[in-house]
Amino acid sequence: MIDIASRVYNHNWKIDPIVRSLIDTDFYKLLMAQSVFLNKPNTQVTFSLINRAQHIPLAKLIDEKELRDQLDHIRTLSLSRGESTWLRGNMFYGKRSMFRAEFVEWFENLRLPPYHLEVKDDQYELTFEGDWPAVMLWEVPALAVLMELRSRAVLKNMGRFELQVLYARAMTKLWEKVECLRKIDDLSLADFGTRRRHSFLWQDWCVQAMMEGLGKKFVGTSNCLIAMRREVEAIGTNAHELPMVYSALAETDEELAEAPFQVLKDWQEEHDGNLRIILPDTYGTEGFLERAPSWLSSWTGIRIDSGDPVKGAEAAIKWWEACGEDPTRKRVIFSDGLDEDMIAHLQRKFHGRVRCSFGWGTMLTNDFRGLVPDDALAPFSLVCKAVSVNGKPTVKLSDNPNKAMGPREEIERYKRVFGVGEQKRQKVLV
Amino acid sequence: MIDIASRVYNHNWKIDPIVRSLIDTDFYKLLMAQSVFLNKPNTQVTFSLINRAQHIPLAKLIDEKELRDQLDHIRTLSLSRGESTWLRGNMFYGKRSMFRAEFVEWFENLRLPPYHLEVKDDQYELTFEGDWPAVMLWEVPALAVLMELRSRAVLKNMGRFELQVLYARAMTKLWEKVECLRKIDDLSLADFGTRRRHSFLWQDWCVQAMMEGLGKKFVGTSNCLIAMRREVEAIGTNAHELPMVYSALAETDEELAEAPFQVLKDWQEEHDGNLRIILPDTYGTEGFLERAPSWLSSWTGIRIDSGDPVKGAEAAIKWWEACGEDPTRKRVIFSDGLDEDMIAHLQRKFHGRVRCSFGWGTMLTNDFRGLVPDDALAPFSLVCKAVSVNGKPTVKLSDNPNKAMGPREEIERYKRVFGVGEQKRQKVLV
Repeated sequence: MIDIASRVYNHNWKIDPIVRSLIDTDFYKLLMAQSVFLNKPNTQVTFSLINRAQHIPLAKLIDEKELRDQLDHIRTLSLSRGESTWLRGNMFYGKRSMFRAEFVEWFENLRLPPYHLEVKDDQYELTFEGDWPAVMLWEVPALAVLMELRSRAVLKNMGRFELQVLYARAMTKLWEKVECLRKIDDLSLADFGTRRRHSFLWQDWCVQAMMEGLGKKFVGTSNCLIAMRREVEAIGTNAHELPMVYSALAETDEELAEAPFQVLKDWQEEHDGNLRIILPDTYGTEGFLERAPSWLSSWTGIRIDSGDPVKGAEAAIKWWEACGEDPTRKRVIFSDGLDEDMIAHLQRKFHGRVRCSFGWGTMLTNDFRGLVPDDALAPFSLVCKAVSVNGKPTVKLSDNPNKAMGPREEIERYKRVFGVGEQKRQKVLV
Repeated sequence: MIDIASRVYNHNWKIDPIVRSLIDTDFYKLLMAQSVFLNKPNTQVTFSLINRAQHIPLAKLIDEKELRDQLDHIRTLSLSRGESTWLRGNMFYGKRSMFRAEFVEWFENLRLPPYHLEVKDDQYELTFEGDWPAVMLWEVPALAVLMELRSRAVLKNMGRFELQVLYARAMTKLWEKVECLRKIDDLSLADFGTRRRHSFLWQDWCVQAMMEGLGKKFVGTSNCLIAMRREVEAIGTNAHELPMVYSALAETDEELAEAPFQVLKDWQEEHDGNLRIILPDTYGTEGFLERAPSWLSSWTGIRIDSGDPVKGAEAAIKWWEACGEDPTRKRVIFSDGLDEDMIAHLQRKFHGRVRCSFGWGTMLTNDFRGLVPDDALAPFSLVCKAVSVNGKPTVKLSDNPNKAMGPREEIERYKRVFGVGEQKRQKVLV
């Protein structure tokens, strides 16, 4: 029987929207938005799309009208009553009322600000400007839209059964990863794949497959909408965005050197337990740990998001030991370039020495490598970053110079201030 | 949105029926039923289920109540108005009004006769008795029900995503076959997989995948319901059933020797062109061709359904040549134990020498080998055959002694009458 009402409802969509909810975003974005809303509400920021994979001509692949339609649609979205209820009433990280009433009220009234879109050299120049708490919420939906429009562009000319077989192969591929991961004792793994997912439906499928296939080893997803609908934990803490903007706001080198720690001081006011996770690599992990104030060693854990993950974890263990902390009670969250082999390797290496967790992103929600000719569905490295703050440029160094960003002279200044020496370049896949 | 009406409709099913239509059967069954209806309507036959795979304890795997529910449901079925219209109005093998009005009227009023079901040594003894035209229509649905109940029994305890991945793997497997077959020039291939299909929905999926993946190389399906719904050709001619019953009706050895040719004489009255396909192996291909009357050499083709297919086709070519016929204008239909490698091999061997066709059965619609532990979904050899006619036993010899059936002394008599010598045993997989 045909569901006439559904058909009619679907006919009313002018487009097939990719992002249908303001909470179809990463949990840490909301945590950070609240922090920014409380601490730096009037900061003016510019976020910009950066396609690190310049060989993928996004403006040739994706129709500009379709992209505008999707972005325009996101600007019509507002928090639904159920979403607001979930944010107010749900327990996050064991805590009720994670989000304050004034923040949720602000969020309820929020519509995302305008975007600026131009085409240059077959690439899209997409920027967002305005108040930090609002503009920052563009990052994840903008990336998700571009990733999914690229998927749609590639899938557009495929037959119905060809498509079904493509997804059958992708499912088989993911399930083989699940079968490999379920053998790992004491695994603790979350989905971090919203921003570079193949599509929303695919991410939703992946999460459900992990729930069934991994049971308690799957601890949750960074995607709030999926966490709400599938009734799993929303996972995430904070990102490079905070130290990058705080640093750009610094007036002097002394303030700059302090900025990353100021971020965590503000964070500590608000959060405890498993939300006190250090992200040390924005301006080099080594210098960060050397300079870290003593109160930071009591934090619950660290997230390793660039560089050699073994080196990063070893550095953290050494630092905790030097501070008189017991590493076996600390959490290390690996979240960079993971796939099932790397997860198994890191777990073997660090299980028992620290509490390991994994935030698995692109290779969970977008591993379509090898499934279509010319590998046209392989994921690629697309980011959307704060590039300027109150008119001043931001800088990121990271533990991999290929992930660095900012004007050359500013990068040199930051390297000097943060005492960053020689760094090893690593290929950025996704 | 939930389709309430569908939900309510589904709630009204006491069971989930496997066979939902009397034309969810092989086309040749209907052609033969019409022939029998016209020529031997009052013949009393017994059909019986035979599980050649005795190591599969069907009565342990399949609940008796579930089996009875399915069989009882089939007895409630009658031809729908649309199905009747299709049988009357559709063009089959280029011919309109393939089915005569008196046959369709009879079919419209038909309900399948009672069945007899007992359990013995973990196997089901399932028999059907009565008028040949009605009883013969039990064969395909009975087999399809047993095969699908066995699938359901194995799938019952699997999780939702585990199931989805199982089907994803099966789809991938089939599509790899399609990708292999689409490379074969001048391929002509039909689905013959109704009776031993994994399930109805799976067969329907396979047919649609072949339509898209093989285009014109896929010529149709033996399944009438799927042919009607998917608007493809219904394919099939005749089966061993006709010579087996005609032979059992023979009073003397002389009549017995003539019986297989009498079948084709009756068939010739009714059909021409691509429906004049000889099935020579019921009592040995070699003797059949030696003894064949000269008028038979003008028939359009031959179907090779047991023994070594290369030998069978070579024997047919030799016979046509001896009769002064041009083999390149004759059709050879291979329909025994096919898979993509064998299809490619036979096409290489005979393309250009004869017109090759393939009736692909079990390995098209039920290749779940290797997809679950203990290979519990691998297809197996289950048949449902006429075992007695007016109280006399039937006999089949075939070109493979492992496919022979009938009482020992009758087999010996048939071997003598049909001059069958030494035969090579071949493993019967499906």
